[in-house]
Amino acid sequence: MIADIIKAYAQKAEQELFKSLPDKSCQQKTVCDAMAYSVEAGGKRLRPVIMLMTAKMLGLSEDNVMPFAAALEMIHTYSLIHDDLPAMDNDDLRRGKPTNHIVYGEAMAILAGDGLLNLAAETVSDASYSIPSERVLKAVCELFTASGTKGMIGGQVTDIESEGKKISLDELRAIHLKKTGMLIRAAGRVPCALFGADEKITAAITAYCDNLGVAFQICDDLLDVYGDSAELGKNVGSDEANDKSTYVSICGKEEAERLMAEHTRLAKESLACFGEKAAELVSLAEYLTKRKN
Amino acid sequence: MIADIIKAYAQKAEQELFKSLPDKSCQQKTVCDAMAYSVEAGGKRLRPVIMLMTAKMLGLSEDNVMPFAAALEMIHTYSLIHDDLPAMDNDDLRRGKPTNHIVYGEAMAILAGDGLLNLAAETVSDASYSIPSERVLKAVCELFTASGTKGMIGGQVTDIESEGKKISLDELRAIHLKKTGMLIRAAGRVPCALFGADEKITAAITAYCDNLGVAFQICDDLLDVYGDSAELGKNVGSDEANDKSTYVSICGKEEAERLMAEHTRLAKESLACFGEKAAELVSLAEYLTKRKN
Repeated sequence: MIADIIKAYAQKAEQELFKSLPDKSCQQKTVCDAMAYSVEAGGKRLRPVIMLMTAKMLGLSEDNVMPFAAALEMIHTYSLIHDDLPAMDNDDLRRGKPTNHIVYGEAMAILAGDGLLNLAAETVSDASYSIPSERVLKAVCELFTASGTKGMIGGQVTDIESEGKKISLDELRAIHLKKTGMLIRAAGRVPCALFGADEKITAAITAYCDNLGVAFQICDDLLDVYGDSAELGKNVGSDEANDKSTYVSICGKEEAERLMAEHTRLAKESLACFGEKAAELVSLAEYLTKRKN
Repeated sequence: MIADIIKAYAQKAEQELFKSLPDKSCQQKTVCDAMAYSVEAGGKRLRPVIMLMTAKMLGLSEDNVMPFAAALEMIHTYSLIHDDLPAMDNDDLRRGKPTNHIVYGEAMAILAGDGLLNLAAETVSDASYSIPSERVLKAVCELFTASGTKGMIGGQVTDIESEGKKISLDELRAIHLKKTGMLIRAAGRVPCALFGADEKITAAITAYCDNLGVAFQICDDLLDVYGDSAELGKNVGSDEANDKSTYVSICGKEEAERLMAEHTRLAKESLACFGEKAAELVSLAEYLTKRKN
């Protein structure tokens, strides 16, 4: 069952992630506790799962990709901590638990976010690899280009600046491609860099990630309107309440569902060149459109 | 004159720093402007200057260390932006100019800080080097270990937690070693890693940086009490007003001056093994104790 396979990958990534956190007996206990609080709050671990599946498809040893899987999830987690701050989205709850700044205060939440972004760089540069260091450096560059102003941070800026404005479908796509899409893309491209994959292979995996990212986002938007609060673990209708443009608000339910199916199909097709080896990533794309949370 | 030599190094580092900033015509103009605002606000560029002088002493080509000099200053700058936030020190002025969040708002200041820390990782991983990549990776690890929870961020946490408390000289030293000392140490140790320096050389340069860092901090504390506002470009007496423990408040003026001279002497002595090649770093240590701002 794909659900079990996904779970196994997610658990492996979590183990590496928890292992990479600063020792809780450290002198700076407060910030280490705050970092661990958000990292341990759970989540789908989607990005590490894609990364580990891609590594397996390419034949790249898990040991070589694991530090990057942990780092990618640290970056994702820091972005959530900073997004939730009063100066940003001002959210009190995430995954059914009080947000970082509610528990640890604003100053410590800012530092916990900074600490996780910094730890991502420490983790990937401090690990042992059995591949050439040039490839590791290239993978570091892929990861941090995806999370920087040309990627995730840039998307967050555009998102903030378009709040309360009517935006087009193209503008919505552009925001999501950066804000959430670039880290999903990095989940596929980092193993490519570590493996030394050629352009054709890298392009195919990039196309898979980009289409999967769009489908994933549309599914999120649909669940926020038509999902079940209990299964979601959060209230539905938050996008409408926050006056946020979504695939549903711009295109309507039917067209959003059609687009989701279309991008899932495109994601799967992108991997045709890998044949049977792509089975896990293909199943993952199908599985994600059927999720209830 | 050492002042001219320092200025020349600082200008070289600034050129590299400005070149590494995101293109101002980028889509995320606001955050790029906010990042550039603080980077271009000036400063001594002490850390890049130490790094470039150390590289020269070792015989390491400037091209190989330049991306790290820019990255180190980006990290220093991001830490100032986040430190100034209302949730942290709540400062309105820095270097005689309104702080980042006063000009760009809190959300953008948080993202500009994140963007600079992220850009540091992008800059060092995206550059071309004429040395083995293993050494570059080791230098990346030196840099980000110094700026993380075991270094600068950790020092900031301890500093916040000791506000309003009476602390001992040893506790004060421990805070400064992490909060400002570790980045100064990285300025010396990153070129060591890039050069592939042996343990003895690395230890000598580390000792220089640590002693210089202490002397630099004592000088800061003295200037805050006995300096001239006009020359400093900021008000004197801010430490006392903020109820901050300093070398002056704990030891008194005379003992602080003695300690500053002692650590400057130790810094210079650490480099004895380099003979004449250490002349610039030796002069820098002397120069810094005589500064008026």
